[in-house]
Amino acid sequence: MIQRSAESIYVDELCKSAKDAYRQIRSINTSQKNKVLEKLSQALVSRKSEILKENIKDLEAGKSKGLSSALLDRLTLDEKRIQSLANAVLEIKALPDPVGETVRGTTLPNGVRLNTKRVPLGVVMVIYESRPNVTIDVGALSFKSGNACILRGGSEAIHSNTILAKIFQDCLKEEGLSPNAVTFVDRTEREYMIPFLKQTSYIDIVVPRGGEGLIRFVSENSLIPVVKHDKGVVNLYIDKSADPKKVLPIAINSKVQRPGVCNAAENLIIHSEYPYIKELLEGLASKGVQLLLDPRSLAIFPQGQAVKEEDYLEEFLDLRFSVKTVDKIEDAIEFIEATSSGHTEAIVTEDVSAANFFSRSLDSAAIFVNISTRFHDGGEFGLGAEVGISTGKLHVRGPMGLVHLTTTTTYAEGEGQVRG
Amino acid sequence: MIQRSAESIYVDELCKSAKDAYRQIRSINTSQKNKVLEKLSQALVSRKSEILKENIKDLEAGKSKGLSSALLDRLTLDEKRIQSLANAVLEIKALPDPVGETVRGTTLPNGVRLNTKRVPLGVVMVIYESRPNVTIDVGALSFKSGNACILRGGSEAIHSNTILAKIFQDCLKEEGLSPNAVTFVDRTEREYMIPFLKQTSYIDIVVPRGGEGLIRFVSENSLIPVVKHDKGVVNLYIDKSADPKKVLPIAINSKVQRPGVCNAAENLIIHSEYPYIKELLEGLASKGVQLLLDPRSLAIFPQGQAVKEEDYLEEFLDLRFSVKTVDKIEDAIEFIEATSSGHTEAIVTEDVSAANFFSRSLDSAAIFVNISTRFHDGGEFGLGAEVGISTGKLHVRGPMGLVHLTTTTTYAEGEGQVRG
Repeated sequence: MIQRSAESIYVDELCKSAKDAYRQIRSINTSQKNKVLEKLSQALVSRKSEILKENIKDLEAGKSKGLSSALLDRLTLDEKRIQSLANAVLEIKALPDPVGETVRGTTLPNGVRLNTKRVPLGVVMVIYESRPNVTIDVGALSFKSGNACILRGGSEAIHSNTILAKIFQDCLKEEGLSPNAVTFVDRTEREYMIPFLKQTSYIDIVVPRGGEGLIRFVSENSLIPVVKHDKGVVNLYIDKSADPKKVLPIAINSKVQRPGVCNAAENLIIHSEYPYIKELLEGLASKGVQLLLDPRSLAIFPQGQAVKEEDYLEEFLDLRFSVKTVDKIEDAIEFIEATSSGHTEAIVTEDVSAANFFSRSLDSAAIFVNISTRFHDGGEFGLGAEVGISTGKLHVRGPMGLVHLTTTTTYAEGEGQVRG
Repeated sequence: MIQRSAESIYVDELCKSAKDAYRQIRSINTSQKNKVLEKLSQALVSRKSEILKENIKDLEAGKSKGLSSALLDRLTLDEKRIQSLANAVLEIKALPDPVGETVRGTTLPNGVRLNTKRVPLGVVMVIYESRPNVTIDVGALSFKSGNACILRGGSEAIHSNTILAKIFQDCLKEEGLSPNAVTFVDRTEREYMIPFLKQTSYIDIVVPRGGEGLIRFVSENSLIPVVKHDKGVVNLYIDKSADPKKVLPIAINSKVQRPGVCNAAENLIIHSEYPYIKELLEGLASKGVQLLLDPRSLAIFPQGQAVKEEDYLEEFLDLRFSVKTVDKIEDAIEFIEATSSGHTEAIVTEDVSAANFFSRSLDSAAIFVNISTRFHDGGEFGLGAEVGISTGKLHVRGPMGLVHLTTTTTYAEGEGQVRG
């Protein structure tokens, strides 16, 4: 007899109960789902004192562990943030339910009626770090699309995540639904993660959200299909013909507006004949951007520091900007092909041919002309709430919305037709 | 210094040159692609003597290795089959090119113009067994959708596959394109397969087509996303209200018409109150079907043999049919949930409620009412040529056509917009 480990017993049980819950919720109708979300939105507000009490435990543990103030800020929930969380749930409630939508409907020449419709994916596992709002956001997106989810957050947010998941589960129970539709993993040790990644009979998709280490760990260990939300080494190219009135606002917005997110720019590529390089670098520096410069740009702005080759491959997630000078657009393309993580690339140019050449040559999830890289976002694209930005090419590339939490089934019916 | 193995040098080189070829062909236009396919179709016919000569080598090797006559038949190319191959290429040529299609086009409130368009996936690796026509079919589908492909066929068809790939490459060269757009792997040992499955920088998708062993090997070893074409344990349920005029033709067609394919039925589930069980079993037996029966159906048709529990999980791919008797539709659903591989399930019934309950309760790629299971096919669905039938839920479920060899890029342009 094989001795099963404590980890595998724990994981098996959670997976089985999540799959049972999926069988229950996959076919409930939209109004039932919306009723739960309405209730959840109210409960978040009415039970905010419980949430705040648990959140303080995480914050105190974080402080004594010496977490940075940026990380502590990501962890923090206050009244205002709880209200935004409640509002986000109402926004998800308001989104059209993708389940049941006919993607293709036709009658074949032999009279068979065929309907390919969206159905839930099944059991969705999301592995995330720090921000506790993910528990509610992703839980609500999964539920709205008829999936059961297994949520595995980071240890630093365990108390906040636990109470948020519990509030969601209470709302499910009140509507007579299985609380396991939002299954929460309260064991955050890594040895408890691996067995989940082998549960191909119970889990249909794994979505890792977080740093490079987490993404790599999940990709390398998972037997379940992974949709990853990987790093964004985002390139911004200033062409020689660029309009200086557009250049500085776009460069500042792309780097400074929210440097800690994946669609913020990391590399600034400048055509050597662009006439206002000095003004551009000075303008960025005046916003607190630390410039890492190649020899030619350093000569123009000696206050900066020298860039190292490896800087061009790094997602800084802060106010550092690596600068590369090129003599022609082809060199910019080549540089991007070598550094890009396939997330977002942008060009600022007044030259139609340059814009077209740039767009045609590159192979990334988003390619922008004369706008900030920060627009690569489900909300900005008008798609509603998102699970994240997928950097993979399969299933979904770019913002992963409700619709990407579904697959299809083809329903066909006839009067006894057989194949000739 | 790390010593690189012969396998890894070989694999690296093929992957790099395939990726270079992809960069060349990803943006060529449809008429250029169609010109190559036209040429390929002609060359297959005009060079048929070369093909036949190489095919004979595989057949002779196969015979001396003692391959079954069914396998030898799958290997065989004759004039007629070469002509069908040439015709299949013309059909792929005639399909609309998915590349460049706008999936979503809109102008955002801030004036940004956004276009999400289909683009090729990149480098597609297909791993397949026995039938040499896959080399041409899949090569043509990949090329038409702007991808470079890496084709790795089985060792038993190595001579046939090599000449077919060479003919394709010659046509590419004649049009001034890189022959590596159709890269052929002439080393079929398994130790040469593993390094391919780790090439995440060069290969975008791996599609295994073949037996369970191959699919499992690829899924477990690949770091590249896999779209698998797995086994079909297809269930056919005869409800108590089923019309006997439909039952026998559907059961025979589902099992007998082409037993060796994934959409042929494997399990026959019969409601105990269906009045014509004896006629159904006799009718199947008269077509040469070997019936594996549970005790209740064996009592009705004693000429059959007893089924074993594990038979219900097996994809026979031949004229065996496992039979299960149930007393109510809920038991049929439960049986299907336990045995199904998620491929195709069918019900024969005159009862609308039973049909709806069946469709609503099950979670498979295709669910059929009163038609043969054999209709689960890209051609039959009116989708044109297919790479295979995907049994996964991500990216594509069911027939995998040209469109599923693409991903999307979102192109957006504006006049200097930044995010507020």
